[in-house]
Amino acid sequence: MKGKKRLRRKLPGRPLKREMQSLTRTIGQPPGTLLHIGEQKTGSALITVFGYDEAHEFHCTVNSLSECMAWKEWPGVLWINIDGLHDVTLIEEAGRLYNIHPLTQEDILHTGQRPKIEDFEGYLFLVLRTLEVDPASAEITEEQLSMVIGKNYVLTFQEKPGDMFQAVRERIKSPGTGIRKRRADYLAYALIDAVVDSYFLILEELESHIELLDQELFAASGHDTFQSIYGLKKELILLRKSVRPMREIINSISRDHYKVIDDAATWPFFRDVYDNVILIIETIETYRDIVIGMYDTWLAIVNNRMNEIMKVLTTIATIFMPLSFMAGVYGMNFRSMPGLEWQWGFYALLGVMGLIVAGMLVFFRTRKWF
Amino acid sequence: MKGKKRLRRKLPGRPLKREMQSLTRTIGQPPGTLLHIGEQKTGSALITVFGYDEAHEFHCTVNSLSECMAWKEWPGVLWINIDGLHDVTLIEEAGRLYNIHPLTQEDILHTGQRPKIEDFEGYLFLVLRTLEVDPASAEITEEQLSMVIGKNYVLTFQEKPGDMFQAVRERIKSPGTGIRKRRADYLAYALIDAVVDSYFLILEELESHIELLDQELFAASGHDTFQSIYGLKKELILLRKSVRPMREIINSISRDHYKVIDDAATWPFFRDVYDNVILIIETIETYRDIVIGMYDTWLAIVNNRMNEIMKVLTTIATIFMPLSFMAGVYGMNFRSMPGLEWQWGFYALLGVMGLIVAGMLVFFRTRKWF
Amino acid sequence: MKGKKRLRRKLPGRPLKREMQSLTRTIGQPPGTLLHIGEQKTGSALITVFGYDEAHEFHCTVNSLSECMAWKEWPGVLWINIDGLHDVTLIEEAGRLYNIHPLTQEDILHTGQRPKIEDFEGYLFLVLRTLEVDPASAEITEEQLSMVIGKNYVLTFQEKPGDMFQAVRERIKSPGTGIRKRRADYLAYALIDAVVDSYFLILEELESHIELLDQELFAASGHDTFQSIYGLKKELILLRKSVRPMREIINSISRDHYKVIDDAATWPFFRDVYDNVILIIETIETYRDIVIGMYDTWLAIVNNRMNEIMKVLTTIATIFMPLSFMAGVYGMNFRSMPGLEWQWGFYALLGVMGLIVAGMLVFFRTRKWF
Amino acid sequence: MKGKKRLRRKLPGRPLKREMQSLTRTIGQPPGTLLHIGEQKTGSALITVFGYDEAHEFHCTVNSLSECMAWKEWPGVLWINIDGLHDVTLIEEAGRLYNIHPLTQEDILHTGQRPKIEDFEGYLFLVLRTLEVDPASAEITEEQLSMVIGKNYVLTFQEKPGDMFQAVRERIKSPGTGIRKRRADYLAYALIDAVVDSYFLILEELESHIELLDQELFAASGHDTFQSIYGLKKELILLRKSVRPMREIINSISRDHYKVIDDAATWPFFRDVYDNVILIIETIETYRDIVIGMYDTWLAIVNNRMNEIMKVLTTIATIFMPLSFMAGVYGMNFRSMPGLEWQWGFYALLGVMGLIVAGMLVFFRTRKWF
Amino acid sequence: MKGKKRLRRKLPGRPLKREMQSLTRTIGQPPGTLLHIGEQKTGSALITVFGYDEAHEFHCTVNSLSECMAWKEWPGVLWINIDGLHDVTLIEEAGRLYNIHPLTQEDILHTGQRPKIEDFEGYLFLVLRTLEVDPASAEITEEQLSMVIGKNYVLTFQEKPGDMFQAVRERIKSPGTGIRKRRADYLAYALIDAVVDSYFLILEELESHIELLDQELFAASGHDTFQSIYGLKKELILLRKSVRPMREIINSISRDHYKVIDDAATWPFFRDVYDNVILIIETIETYRDIVIGMYDTWLAIVNNRMNEIMKVLTTIATIFMPLSFMAGVYGMNFRSMPGLEWQWGFYALLGVMGLIVAGMLVFFRTRKWF
Repeated sequence: MKGKKRLRRKLPGRPLKREMQSLTRTIGQPPGTLLHIGEQKTGSALITVFGYDEAHEFHCTVNSLSECMAWKEWPGVLWINIDGLHDVTLIEEAGRLYNIHPLTQEDILHTGQRPKIEDFEGYLFLVLRTLEVDPASAEITEEQLSMVIGKNYVLTFQEKPGDMFQAVRERIKSPGTGIRKRRADYLAYALIDAVVDSYFLILEELESHIELLDQELFAASGHDTFQSIYGLKKELILLRKSVRPMREIINSISRDHYKVIDDAATWPFFRDVYDNVILIIETIETYRDIVIGMYDTWLAIVNNRMNEIMKVLTTIATIFMPLSFMAGVYGMNFRSMPGLEWQWGFYALLGVMGLIVAGMLVFFRTRKWF
Repeated sequence: MKGKKRLRRKLPGRPLKREMQSLTRTIGQPPGTLLHIGEQKTGSALITVFGYDEAHEFHCTVNSLSECMAWKEWPGVLWINIDGLHDVTLIEEAGRLYNIHPLTQEDILHTGQRPKIEDFEGYLFLVLRTLEVDPASAEITEEQLSMVIGKNYVLTFQEKPGDMFQAVRERIKSPGTGIRKRRADYLAYALIDAVVDSYFLILEELESHIELLDQELFAASGHDTFQSIYGLKKELILLRKSVRPMREIINSISRDHYKVIDDAATWPFFRDVYDNVILIIETIETYRDIVIGMYDTWLAIVNNRMNEIMKVLTTIATIFMPLSFMAGVYGMNFRSMPGLEWQWGFYALLGVMGLIVAGMLVFFRTRKWF
Repeated sequence: MKGKKRLRRKLPGRPLKREMQSLTRTIGQPPGTLLHIGEQKTGSALITVFGYDEAHEFHCTVNSLSECMAWKEWPGVLWINIDGLHDVTLIEEAGRLYNIHPLTQEDILHTGQRPKIEDFEGYLFLVLRTLEVDPASAEITEEQLSMVIGKNYVLTFQEKPGDMFQAVRERIKSPGTGIRKRRADYLAYALIDAVVDSYFLILEELESHIELLDQELFAASGHDTFQSIYGLKKELILLRKSVRPMREIINSISRDHYKVIDDAATWPFFRDVYDNVILIIETIETYRDIVIGMYDTWLAIVNNRMNEIMKVLTTIATIFMPLSFMAGVYGMNFRSMPGLEWQWGFYALLGVMGLIVAGMLVFFRTRKWF
Repeated sequence: MKGKKRLRRKLPGRPLKREMQSLTRTIGQPPGTLLHIGEQKTGSALITVFGYDEAHEFHCTVNSLSECMAWKEWPGVLWINIDGLHDVTLIEEAGRLYNIHPLTQEDILHTGQRPKIEDFEGYLFLVLRTLEVDPASAEITEEQLSMVIGKNYVLTFQEKPGDMFQAVRERIKSPGTGIRKRRADYLAYALIDAVVDSYFLILEELESHIELLDQELFAASGHDTFQSIYGLKKELILLRKSVRPMREIINSISRDHYKVIDDAATWPFFRDVYDNVILIIETIETYRDIVIGMYDTWLAIVNNRMNEIMKVLTTIATIFMPLSFMAGVYGMNFRSMPGLEWQWGFYALLGVMGLIVAGMLVFFRTRKWF
Repeated sequence: MKGKKRLRRKLPGRPLKREMQSLTRTIGQPPGTLLHIGEQKTGSALITVFGYDEAHEFHCTVNSLSECMAWKEWPGVLWINIDGLHDVTLIEEAGRLYNIHPLTQEDILHTGQRPKIEDFEGYLFLVLRTLEVDPASAEITEEQLSMVIGKNYVLTFQEKPGDMFQAVRERIKSPGTGIRKRRADYLAYALIDAVVDSYFLILEELESHIELLDQELFAASGHDTFQSIYGLKKELILLRKSVRPMREIINSISRDHYKVIDDAATWPFFRDVYDNVILIIETIETYRDIVIGMYDTWLAIVNNRMNEIMKVLTTIATIFMPLSFMAGVYGMNFRSMPGLEWQWGFYALLGVMGLIVAGMLVFFRTRKWF
């Protein structure tokens, strides 16, 4: 009980479910069938458009992509973010406007994809997983973020609005920031960086629980402690599954020389993201090893405690069983028993019992039971 | 008992058997000997023929390959599916018609093969494993699907009819679908995709069990729980064995530039299958880690429960053994014992006993036993 | 007891011994020293000679290699099999006749080698491990099979005669079989294939034990069960050690283009062996994972059973200790005790005891002890 | 208690904390934002400047980089060490002077980086982790050491002053040492070598604890022992995380031919560091395996001890329960019981009891309980 | 007790110590500082010189290298073996004579190196680890063997004399042996081969213990058994650490075409050593897996035995507690109790008790407790 109370906040975690369930719903459909997979998570789709170059910037929020028709002519960088995927026609429209392959459109809608990078004619397609903790319920929501990177535009697709990209939006709005001076590939970097930063937030949450567990492990090893260990282990496994493919994605950006990425200018920034991804993966592995060590320790402590309890039981039984037997012997009703009539018989027997107890205690001491 | 009842359906699983047994039956035979390995699983072989191009389509079901002689001249795509392998002459006939190497014919009949891809003069030979759950018995049947991919035909061989390819058949029958516009390599892709989709169905079944176990783990940790954990672990191991070689097969399709596969047009689709295979493999690994964590947790809970039981036992013994001893002492028949004649002796002794119990309870409280 | 009886036959296994012991006997000898390592396993060396081409075939069994001098001129394929290595001069003679390097001769005699492939001037040298189960004792014998593959001959060396190659001999004797139409490299393939087939036989034996264990695990988890698990684990470890190097050997045949192997014609057959080796290795790994899962399960069952036993003990002790104490109290000899004189005192006390038992049972029921 | 006392000194360790916490503080900042991450660990920044060539040497300690302006013209090797990173302007100033990329400046200040090597225009940037044990508290402090290696200068940045580089300073001060004859790359080597040497010191500390644990394991396996095992395991995991990236860094120096490193002259020295890093990594792995073995052993010993305790309890209970029962039987108040009136009844019963005890002891002996 | 006695000899092992301690003694020294690390293990350094070619041979033992000046002109193969490294001037002298790099000299003296191979101008430098078992104490001594291989000489450096190279010396002395006909690279091979052979001796020792443990595991699973398992595991870990780098060293000899090694002539011999090293490494891995399986088995046996003990205890308690209670009830002093006055009351009660015992036994039988 106490163990739990002392933890600052609830261990973040996510329910184990629905991933496959949603993927199996498309079985039997021809490839390229547009069908949104997953629950509808937001009321109506929300489209946020940002256009900027070094000198100018505009942004607005619309409900239908046709309203943003005019912006297609914008010569600077364009970022269109679509929150809400249940409106399939919206995706189809975006697909027509930006010449997006049907398979890409399908991947945008099937939100159970593994993070990946795919090169298509005219654009680069990325699938990432974003992670957010709901501070109230401590539940982790994992979403798919699809990103289409063109020569001068970036399209992002999410199931529901999140505030992960707030800082990027602020930087776009402020004139003179680095992002205003650069191209769409830098915008893509900034967004990917924001996604990777969100992993740090999850890790920090888990870290604070690991730290507390580490301190409390030898003090209070109740049921709660173990439930925390199990939860941490599970969460680290799921986290690793989401983060690990990122390594290969960013590696591919550096290795495969995609047309829409300007290697010389933007690679130092991607290398920075890469370092962060490696740091996250190694930290997850390190924490897993530590949490496994905690489990072993918990088990050892429980075993040790059992040992202590058994020692108490055995000590008590070993002392009182012979004594009770002796009392039982002198409680028998035989007519002729030695000592019963003797005046000091009772005290003599108590003395013998005292000697036996002393002997037992010496025996236990030599066995180091206390 | 209850743990099991709450699971929506029986854990799908398969008996551990017969794999090697069937393979050893051919030992000593020269290579290329045609001999069907495995039980006969269907009455008489069933041959389903589909022929189509963009404009036309025909299909029918025959019992003997000679009836489909006429179709050999069909210029479009031809798909011949043979269910039932016990009729060895049928395979020989197909071998003659399509110029199939004796070793390939042997592999089609020896249904215990590891999934593989082999390039032969004029065709590509694939061995896949299909998995189907019988909804009634929850038993998983693993079958070998052999596929011969030629320039304009696909031959598939199975031991017994399944409904895995139903959706593909529907798409072929509907004019205007993508499959009608493409060649045999796309048909091969569609069939492989259907096989991979069937793995998702198994995974979904297992996932729903893992989810339930995860919720119930700390509540009901009886024998059933553990049996489920063991079953899940075993099934994930067997599943991994079936799925893992798929990775290398599809990798090989992309890497080795087989003549019968039109790389440019069909590769994006195979890449899609590849992503699915990777997702399945990683999900299996993740689930294995989680199920191993569940086993550890189960053991820890049982240990903890043992601890609780021991505490109860020790508390009871530690309280009543000294009391019983004292009662025994005053039940002895010594003539001269102090207090027996005293009017309040009985109550005084009860008081002393009460003090001892109180002391014990304080002792246990300091040891945090309750 | 019963667990064991139900297993169809004894678990095949081999004693853990003598491997290093024999290798250390040659320490200090200059390389190329011919000294047979290992016990003498057969009376006198037995030489079997097979010569054949498509039209002719002859074979005979001699005791000295000089008797087979005449056959050296045979233009077709020649297979000389030598059983029994204690006669060092025999090996030396063969070495002279076929120009075998002293290090190869040494390796033939030192029968504790790891499977390997080595290319020498004029021949290819292979070391394989054969495995045979003695059906009576269920003991697995592991032997070294050395193979020298020349342009038109194959020499095989074993410590004692085995019947592994019986099927190959039959095929050579029958005119018209594939082996008669091909060259020495195909003969080598046929022999290697026979060796790999022998692994399947071992695996099938182990598989039938694993299957039985899997069925019985939750029913009868006695000492025998565990001994079987331990034996299976050990045997799978040793099996893996023997089989794993085979992968690399056959890989090398395909990759390194040895002069004595006709790649185009024989490689499809070696690829077949390769598939089998991979299947065996993966099956061993899968079985190991399953057997490890069985061990965990066994431990969990034992723990669970201990829990049950402890519950019985605790229930009994918790019920009878307070009752015995109360009986003890009313067995004391105080002059003045309440209720002793009361007519219904005895029955009242029994009633109180009954209430206590009922309370205990309710307590245990809430803790779900039955 | 005793177990701990016998350990020469406290197990060195570090608290599990704050790593991620500090990294998440920069989330949302544009790249290149200079903001010191981590606590301020020293009063005011301290700058130590060393300049030398074979003939001359000077050094001094200043508080502001502008005071060292004059030294920029120094033609020999220049080493500027800055302790204390909270003064962001200092880093900016150094950045301007030596043309350091904003991302490098950011990395210098964000002190939670993974060790890495990055090639920039004109200099090589290294991030290392230094480890120091505070002898009093036995706490390990892990710091980030950033190193900028130019053609003839080395800049090092640390959060607080340490005495790791004392020996290097001494060697610079002494005329005629190797370091005076060589260039800046050799100085970089000497500093990296000093960092790697500091890992040896930690390892030696851990080694002495492992050695003691190994000796005491079977003698005193109390709670302390286990806490030491847990601490060692955790520390080895964290140590590995710090050291492992070093391997790849030094590998990169040898492989990537950086401009500022003179391969021919300095590589033999880096190879030496590389050998040390490999030795450290392998030693960590070996110790981890040994410590894991110790954990298993500890658990086994506790289990064994429990067994011993249970044997004592069972022996006592098995002997005295039947005896007490017999005494209880002859304490019953039935009017008619056989033997009560017999003169030798009491002794006869004691005799029977003696026989029972003897029988029990024989029974336990056959079960090898003592 | 008995378990240990039956082992033929003491388990060979080595104390866990001093490795790092000695390496940290050089921290702060400039590279190339000559300082002997480790204890002085022999009285005064002993130099053994062997010179030979096919026709001639001479050898002698001196105390100072200057005495062997004359031999420098020897045109054949020269082998100088130096036992004892505490005399630093000796190493310096050898260094001058044979032009040995200061870093090599340092590595010779710092005897805690990892096995490695380094190519220097004019010679090849190898560090190997030799292992010897002291038959009396069963303690394994691990020494560093440094080897400098020149065009026509081999220098070897050891801390104390060993008899590992006795067989090589004998072969050099005998005219006509292979070693006399070959060059210095063959001598180097012969020495490395002798080192690898010494690993076989250790493995054989360990093997005999594993074999015995395997036989005794199910019979006698006392404390000794476990201590042996722990010792074996530790020794296998340390052994692997010493042997594993050998693989890479010999691989490097074949791959890197060192000038002092005549590839064509000597490589077949090195390949032989390579096969042995691989065999040793795989055997170590196999033994580790087996020993881990033994640990699990030991734990399972202990658990099982605990189960047996608990069954005895529970059976006894469950039988005698109700009986004692009944006896206690009829020992109470109530005036009015039914049956006390009845003539057959005592026997009736005994009968009831008998029935209870019978019922209990049936209950235990159904639970399969015996």
